[in-house]
This record gives sequence, structure tokens and C-alpha cells, in this order.
Amino acid sequence: MPALKEAARDAGNPERSEVRRMPALKGKAIVGQSGGPTAVINASMVGVAEEVKKHPEIQALYGTVHGVEGLMKEELIDLSAETAEALQLLKRTPSAALGSCRHKLKAEDYERILKILQAHNIRYFFYIGGNDSADTSRKIELAAKQAGYEMRVVGIPKTVDNDLAFTDHCPGYGSVARFNAIATRDAGRDTEAIGVVDNVKIIETMGRNTGWITASTALAKEAPDDAPHLIYLPERPLVVERFLADVKRVFDRLGYCVITVCEGLKDEKGETLVASQRAVDVDAFGHKQLGGVADFLCDQIATNLRVKARFDKPGTIQRMSMLAVSEVDLAEAYMAGRAAVRHAAEGVTGQMVTLVREPGPAYKCTTGLARLEDVANAEKPVPDEFINEEGNFVTEAYLEYARPLIGGPLPPYGRLTGKRVPERL
Amino acid sequence: MPALKEAARDAGNPERSEVRRMPALKGKAIVGQSGGPTAVINASMVGVAEEVKKHPEIQALYGTVHGVEGLMKEELIDLSAETAEALQLLKRTPSAALGSCRHKLKAEDYERILKILQAHNIRYFFYIGGNDSADTSRKIELAAKQAGYEMRVVGIPKTVDNDLAFTDHCPGYGSVARFNAIATRDAGRDTEAIGVVDNVKIIETMGRNTGWITASTALAKEAPDDAPHLIYLPERPLVVERFLADVKRVFDRLGYCVITVCEGLKDEKGETLVASQRAVDVDAFGHKQLGGVADFLCDQIATNLRVKARFDKPGTIQRMSMLAVSEVDLAEAYMAGRAAVRHAAEGVTGQMVTLVREPGPAYKCTTGLARLEDVANAEKPVPDEFINEEGNFVTEAYLEYARPLIGGPLPPYGRLTGKRVPERL
Repeated sequence: MPALKEAARDAGNPERSEVRRMPALKGKAIVGQSGGPTAVINASMVGVAEEVKKHPEIQALYGTVHGVEGLMKEELIDLSAETAEALQLLKRTPSAALGSCRHKLKAEDYERILKILQAHNIRYFFYIGGNDSADTSRKIELAAKQAGYEMRVVGIPKTVDNDLAFTDHCPGYGSVARFNAIATRDAGRDTEAIGVVDNVKIIETMGRNTGWITASTALAKEAPDDAPHLIYLPERPLVVERFLADVKRVFDRLGYCVITVCEGLKDEKGETLVASQRAVDVDAFGHKQLGGVADFLCDQIATNLRVKARFDKPGTIQRMSMLAVSEVDLAEAYMAGRAAVRHAAEGVTGQMVTLVREPGPAYKCTTGLARLEDVANAEKPVPDEFINEEGNFVTEAYLEYARPLIGGPLPPYGRLTGKRVPERL
Repeated sequence: MPALKEAARDAGNPERSEVRRMPALKGKAIVGQSGGPTAVINASMVGVAEEVKKHPEIQALYGTVHGVEGLMKEELIDLSAETAEALQLLKRTPSAALGSCRHKLKAEDYERILKILQAHNIRYFFYIGGNDSADTSRKIELAAKQAGYEMRVVGIPKTVDNDLAFTDHCPGYGSVARFNAIATRDAGRDTEAIGVVDNVKIIETMGRNTGWITASTALAKEAPDDAPHLIYLPERPLVVERFLADVKRVFDRLGYCVITVCEGLKDEKGETLVASQRAVDVDAFGHKQLGGVADFLCDQIATNLRVKARFDKPGTIQRMSMLAVSEVDLAEAYMAGRAAVRHAAEGVTGQMVTLVREPGPAYKCTTGLARLEDVANAEKPVPDEFINEEGNFVTEAYLEYARPLIGGPLPPYGRLTGKRVPERL
């Protein structure tokens, strides 16, 4: 994605010399976590906490409990009181230790938040999250500016969905990708062994609007006939007839088939393939809900191809698994947290830290900056060059993009050489 | 379970001195894998392969591809040709490297199988699996006996379901338990962080008839309010009204709730709570299938309690995860494979290796033997003393039983001490 990378770099390097001239701003800092927890969001928080200690003008670091929801209620904790050992352990603890939220603030909320920040002399605001969080941060910055209150607001990216623009990739993605690659390889080995009876396996991954997570299952494939055999992303409409023909082709050849699908698959009209009709979800009483995408597709396979199909839906397990953490992802999440503080100390505000992939044959990642406003209003789908023509797999270009992010090869598995014994009967 | 342990021990020690007197039986050995693959079934196969090398009267070890299904077709491979390095790697590779099956032999099949075994001068038959495999092995032994063909048949236990009688536990269980404990702890941390919006989480585990796997999620709990908050096993009927009252009680107190359920939950009539009505599953065309247990219960919660409920269904991932392998389980699976060969070399036949928990404060496991016929006809449910009175959790006795099996404590996670900042507004 050279275009995106350029953008990230342009946004990322406002003339450093200029921001360096900003005078040191004395006051406290606050950090919050927002959106779906991940394996590495705590690493970003620890990065903030450790970097803050290197900047004497930042007098203390507070944490806001459950993001802006706690901030509204002035539920703050003193992160400066945490020991270095506690922080080290938290760095490798999944979930959001501060508590998270998915709270959309109302216009009047910003006024109250600003009052609370002012009351505690908070001059540095760090918010770890996705584009909704970027939007919240941007509006908090705006409120401060309008009130003439000097405060530096820097966002830290976090989303397993990997759908933020202006950054090469997002902290959280490498680990969810590693988990799903391993889970798909395991499901593949399983189906290979027992596919004689359990013929088709579907793995439903997260990813409401974009297929980045589903795409990562391709990293399971070590040999041409390995799982996954088919991958479906929401960037392409799912046509059931074509899907069934794809499955039949693989099944007829191998005797089994492993498919990975995104929970957010869309049909030809762009509608979610299987919309929840649950009372609480649609805010109206109703009908028995239909189950998920994988369930629906298993049913299609069973009914139309008359072969057994089962699904795995790792759900939140995939984004929380510290067992499958990508060490690259963990290190970058931590780096992003530290970079946010460093930039803010230098005078940066209204920006989100980005991850920048350096050119060259070896993978190297540094940080840049992008405007919170730009990040808030963009969503990055899996680009065309990462999806094959048939819309049922990813391309080599995607694999090249994703491979370094999962932190090294998958743990090695063996195979029998399987020297055949000559028949005697 | 002292009663079971006694039984295992009685069955396990037929007068050793007597079997030792059997003359060495020259010939080849064969090993097969059957039923659902696990993280450690290859370790048992490697145990067989390595022990065979110590017995010169066993001239070679063959593997049967896809269990008895391959045996019927004389699809055999030469395991003696595998290198020591290849076996070492396979020991830590999940799934069934030989291929597995769920094949019920017909009466006439045994005759053909016997002919094939005789043609290759196979005198040792090892079959790794659950009670169906014990039944198959028993019948193969009977066929050999009736034909006056001397062959020693020894079963090796394998099932994540942990439902075999006459053995303290089953290879495969410790690892699926470790996976589910970690996954449930992760889901708990996730729900704790984001439960303000994603209120209820249900994890659906495997276990068609028994609740052993679901029970193991209790090992996630490190503090009283940790997940799981409720556990439902098929050993107790699920009464939806009571279930909803349980969930409401937890939710009202904590603001979120993590529940683990078995895929095979039954209603008060003993019927599967959510039976599949899929064409291919019920062998008749029909209706949209209903989804699984967790899906159904999420819907009940959403509709009746009007709170959001989501489910994770790790499916085959749970039984295949080498990331969460229990080192105790792996070592015991290997030990069971070796013990089978040792016993057969001594003259044992018609028996399955069992795992025997030695008395004493420290966990120690040895092997014993149980008659294949007895194993084939029994299923071990979770006993009453392992389930609480309300039928919505396990007891301390279960935790004591299960804790040593998962191979040490879960990886340590941190928590913020969370020193509260005094309010200023």
C-alpha cells in the first residue's frame, strides 16, 4: 500500500524542529482505553506510563476507568502509584486493565470533561483506541482549544480490525492474525485427519466491516493443499451459489474443505448477510434470531451439497489470546504508547501515532503521526490488490504485507513421511 | 472418585507374574488413531513407536491410515521408517498424523481385517481412541481368537471428553481443560473491561454427553468474582427459567456475566436442548437448523432479560491447541503409548491402558489396565460430588481433581492496584 504509506509519512512528520520549540508544559497526564480489548492494549498503556517518567514536566499519570465513561464520572486512578514490576506484568496481560467503553459523548459532555481535566490540571490526554476514539479525542481537544485551556491530545492506535487509515497497520492486528493463523492451521490438520466424516469446517472470524482479520487466516497455509482453502471477506459480496460451487470444487478434490469467513459478510445488495434480529440488538421485539454467518453457510452446505459442515467461532478469544501474541505486535503497541508521550512532550497535539513500515527488504517499523480528524473519518478496507480475482482468497501481496506482523513463523508441526507398505492381499 | 480408582486398579493389575511367563511373540505391530483428534494423540503414537524399538521380537511397526477404515483397504504405512527427529516433532504436533476415523465396522469386516493382519504377520494391535475404539479393538481381538491367530490387542485411551470409565482421566483432557481455562479467563477479563456494553458472554464447549470439558472452565477462576460465574453441564437438566434467574442475579450484582455451557445440554425430558434439524444430520430434508446451545441461550437472555449476550464457540480449536497443551497431559499420553507396548510384549491382550492417580498429597500418575469390553460399554459422567447443589457450578472436589491435570498454573496476569484519585468536582 504505497499510497497509504506516503500519506502516513506526510502526516507523520510535521516539521519536527518547529514543534520542538514549544515550551515545556507543566501538568498531569491522563490515559484511557477504548473499544474492544486486545492482547496488547495494556502494552500501549505501559508504554505511556514508562515514558511519562522520563518527562519531569509531566507531574503524574492518571488513568480513566472505562475510558470517557469514567472520565465523565471523575473515576480516575493514579497510575504513577503502580510499581515497575506491576507494569511489567501488565504489559503481557490481555484485555484493558483500565476498563474500556464504547461510549459516544453528547455535545454537553465535553464541557463537563473539560472541567474535570482542568480541575486536575491535566495537560496531556492520551487515548488508546480506533476511529471512534480518535473522534472523541479530537472533540476533547477542540473543547480545550475553545476554552483557551492548553492541553495536548495524542491518540494511540488500537484495533484488531486493522481498519485505521494513515497507519501501515494497527497494534492488536498482528496478534489476532497470529491466533487465527494457528487456529486455522489446527482446524486444517484436524479436518485433514477426520475429514472423512467431518467434511467441511468453517471458521468465523471477527471483522464487522473489513476483512483484515479473516485474511490473516491465509498465513496458516504452508503447502498448497493446506487450510484455508477458501477465504471470504466483506470487501466482496458473497454470492451463495458461487460460494457453494467453490466449496464443491475443493471438496470433490480433497474430500474435505476448510473455509474462513468474516462475521460481517455482505450480500450483493451490500446488506449484512445474516443480520441479527434479536430484540435487544434491533431495539424492537421480534423473531428468533438467525445465528451467525458461519451457521448460515453451514446450513447452505448441508442442505445443498449434502455434506457435513461445522463451524468454529473463536469470538473474543481470538483478540485476547496472550498464548498467540505476536512479539512484533506487542513491541509496537508499547512503542506507540511511548511515542505518544514523547510527541506530546514536544508539543504535538490533535494527532494519532501511526506505525510506519520502513522501506527495504527487512521488516522495520517506526512511528509517525496522522491528524486525529483524518483518522476519525476514514476506514481502511482490504485493498483490491490483496484479494484474488475470484474473491475467494488473498494474494501474495497480502501475505508479504502480513507475514512480518505476526512475529515470526508459526510453531513447527511435523508430518509422517508415510512410507507405504506394499499390499499383500 | 475412590470407587472408580479401585476399579481401575483391580482391572489394572492382573497377576503380573503370570503374564510375564508368556513366551515372546515374534511379529509386527500396528497402531491406529480413532475419533476426534487432540493435541496429544500423536504423543501416544510416538510412545508406541519408541517403545516398540526396545522389543526385538516386534519386528516392525505399521500405522493404519484413518484407523480401521484404512485397515480395511490395506492402507498401511511403515512407521519404523520414521526418523527419531521426525517422531520428536510429531510428539508436539496436534491432530492425528495417521488420519482418524469414526467408522463402525460390520460383522463381515472383521474377517477381512483379520486376513490383512495375518498377511502381514501383525501380532500386536494398538488402537488409540475412546469407547467406540475399545469396542472395535475388542471385536478384532475376538475375531483373531476365534480364528486361532495369536495376536495381542491393547487399547490406548484418548478423548478430550474424559468420559472413559476405569481410568482416572483420559489423555487429551488436561490440554482441552487448560485451553478452556485460559480462554474463559480471557473472556472474563474481556467482559470485565467492556461489560459496560457487551454484558453477557457465553462460551460453548465441546462435550456431547458429559460435562467434563465445560467443568474445566472453572479453573479460570482466581478470585471469587472472576469468570466463569455460571457453569452448566449436561449431567443436570437445563431449566430455562432457572438459568435466566441465575444470569440475572450475577448481572445485577456485577454488571456483566460470563457463562460456560456444554454443547450437549439437555432439557428436563433428557432431550438435547437444541437438536440439529439439518438435512444431512437427521437424514431427512428440512427446516432451517436452530443453531447451537449458546446461540439459543443468548437469544433467551436478550429477549427475556433485555441485555446483550454474545457467544464464543472455540469448536475444534479447543482440542487441537498446542499453545495451551498441558505438559502433564502430553507426558501421560506418551506414557500410555509406551505402556501399551510394554504390556503387550508381556502378554497382555484385550485390555486398555488406564491412568491411575497414586494416593498422596503430590500428584502422581501411573498406568494400569482395564478390560476393553468393560471400557467399551461404559461412559463416565461427571459425578454428583463434582457438581454443586444448584447445578450451576462445580465443587471444590472437582477443582482438586482437575487442577493437576492442566500442567501447572495458568500464565500469570497482572491487575492495576487502582489507587483512586480523590474527586475535585
